[in-house]
Amino acid sequence: MSVIAPAGFEAAGVAAGIKRTGALDLSLVVNRGPSHAAAAVFTSNRAQANPIIWSRQVILDGVVSAIVLNSGGANCFTGPEGFQVTHRTAEAAASALGVSAGDVLVCSTGLIGDQLDGEVLEEGVLSAANRLGADAAAGADAARAIMTTDTTPKTVVVEGDGWRIGGMAKGAGMLAPGLATMLVVLTTDAVLEASDLDAALRQATRVTFDRLDSDGCMSTNDQVTLLASGASGVVPELAAFTQALTRACEDLATQLQADAEGASHDISIEVLGAATEDDAVEVGRSVARNNLFKAAIFGNDPNWGRVLAAIGTTQAPFDPYLVDVSMNGVRVCHAGRPDRPRDEVDLSPRATHVRIELHAGEASATIRTNDLTHDYVHENSAYAS
Amino acid sequence: MSVIAPAGFEAAGVAAGIKRTGALDLSLVVNRGPSHAAAAVFTSNRAQANPIIWSRQVILDGVVSAIVLNSGGANCFTGPEGFQVTHRTAEAAASALGVSAGDVLVCSTGLIGDQLDGEVLEEGVLSAANRLGADAAAGADAARAIMTTDTTPKTVVVEGDGWRIGGMAKGAGMLAPGLATMLVVLTTDAVLEASDLDAALRQATRVTFDRLDSDGCMSTNDQVTLLASGASGVVPELAAFTQALTRACEDLATQLQADAEGASHDISIEVLGAATEDDAVEVGRSVARNNLFKAAIFGNDPNWGRVLAAIGTTQAPFDPYLVDVSMNGVRVCHAGRPDRPRDEVDLSPRATHVRIELHAGEASATIRTNDLTHDYVHENSAYAS
Repeated sequence: MSVIAPAGFEAAGVAAGIKRTGALDLSLVVNRGPSHAAAAVFTSNRAQANPIIWSRQVILDGVVSAIVLNSGGANCFTGPEGFQVTHRTAEAAASALGVSAGDVLVCSTGLIGDQLDGEVLEEGVLSAANRLGADAAAGADAARAIMTTDTTPKTVVVEGDGWRIGGMAKGAGMLAPGLATMLVVLTTDAVLEASDLDAALRQATRVTFDRLDSDGCMSTNDQVTLLASGASGVVPELAAFTQALTRACEDLATQLQADAEGASHDISIEVLGAATEDDAVEVGRSVARNNLFKAAIFGNDPNWGRVLAAIGTTQAPFDPYLVDVSMNGVRVCHAGRPDRPRDEVDLSPRATHVRIELHAGEASATIRTNDLTHDYVHENSAYAS
Repeated sequence: MSVIAPAGFEAAGVAAGIKRTGALDLSLVVNRGPSHAAAAVFTSNRAQANPIIWSRQVILDGVVSAIVLNSGGANCFTGPEGFQVTHRTAEAAASALGVSAGDVLVCSTGLIGDQLDGEVLEEGVLSAANRLGADAAAGADAARAIMTTDTTPKTVVVEGDGWRIGGMAKGAGMLAPGLATMLVVLTTDAVLEASDLDAALRQATRVTFDRLDSDGCMSTNDQVTLLASGASGVVPELAAFTQALTRACEDLATQLQADAEGASHDISIEVLGAATEDDAVEVGRSVARNNLFKAAIFGNDPNWGRVLAAIGTTQAPFDPYLVDVSMNGVRVCHAGRPDRPRDEVDLSPRATHVRIELHAGEASATIRTNDLTHDYVHENSAYAS
């Protein structure tokens, strides 16, 4: 179902020939209206791909008719020629759909620094426009065509009160704050203005995708887009919509974490007792980015010393010698000293829970990450992406 | 030779029984004077081991008679009992040498969160005090007894004009800014006051150990100590001494990098054209800490896109679309666009040079790191340290 679950949307996924393997590599999602309100958030990396530069302009007026996404090449650091390819992609979609190119978003993912072939993109867009559909197969193809090292497509549907949210995502590495090689398209048939979509999207991504930090590397191509057709005719409460949207994002984030490159553990780092929520996020992220901790979890080693060594590098106010650390329910460190024996901790399940109690306030946050594995090293050394 | 190369020093390395393997695990270095001036720099991690807490107090008056170093346990997050062990270690050395415990530094390295046995430490110190010597074997044993995952001892001697600097170091992982599980003892027979030693040591470490960022993880136990006996009777120019000390630190840093856990490439990231030296350091460090870049180098893949994606996350002022990147002498990116073909780059040598020209000013800095390898993951998942 994915992006075509809400009324008013059509999609297609085709093999345009960008990937040498002949796999699906180009998606088109079209909003048939009656409304074309939209919002998007982008990577905070200053090194931004051409489709990001383009899409940032398109989204300014809050009106989007369609979005084209390709895998097989990031179109980043490819100079003015690269920008021309992005522009040509949008023009091709606009021409095929009878809309303005200024209302067409473009996303790309793949290797940085390689030129995409504009003609291949253009033909792919035309082919996709000819295959647009609102059936399950169309939604599934669109979700599959944006995959790179993903092993499975990621989709979501959340039911509202007379409206729906649908979504698809790709991303298996580079997940990081400010988002990462993560492309997400969310659709809804709820009736909402662009400014409300923007507020809801920022709130939802802040507590979901922004707290998924698989490998600390921030992408040049991240984009999370929300398109609203208004086709349900129902105007939702913004709070209820934001909650449903957050649930959709949370679900996709969980799928991204579960498919992270080479990972063998999905780690939730829950930080409690922080002075502020920002402090909790900073502390959790410092653990999520510590290679020694991540390698220990891969080895099923409840090495809590590496947790404390990591959080000691933060600026968050707390006393390291008051901190408690639990792993999978066993408190291995109490007040900065050894507590239960390490061998009581069972780290063999894929789901791993690290709980850090700072005793410095009432705020909390959970950061999600993955372990550092041989397969991660293999995928990212052997595969040029 | 190592720490006993300058006149006025004696050392020993013994197997105290801290390591279950029976390997050397305790070093003692004694300054016989006539001067006992000293300086030290410590980890900037707020989570600090008991020997760090102790040694910070000892160094305050700039007078040190001896330093005890043990491998086999970090004595970190071990509570008041752990601090007692550190205190007892210093007392044992003081009593055996006829000096004040307040003039004895202590360093520990190994697993965080395990208690050390105070009696074993005390007996080890007495045994070391009985074997003190100023011959090459004594210096070699002292350098060997501080090793953990190091595969080889690291020592250095630099000749001054009538004086010498000697040194030993351990550390094979956790090398990071603000130093990392790196213990370094430097000795000199030059005549210098503690304040001059402190100034020279801070300058030397700032441009050497502080710019070695093997895996981005900062230790709880780092300490770099400089002891001056004055036994040469020669008062050097401070600038000449600082230069020689920097050379000694650079030499040891190179040895640390070459022995970093599981590494197959020693990577120098040279950042040129930065607005300030701090900017150059920030840019270089962002690359040194990017797992995707590090895995690519392991795979001999000149993936310059990952360099640009990494530096785009910094706050340093530059335009990503003016940046040049060279790898091992081949400019693969010019003005943010592809330049020479990737396959011209030969990344098979261990020594890897990445040159980043920001075109934003005149400042520069070089950060050194290692690649992310299967062996790194293996060592840090299978070995509880």
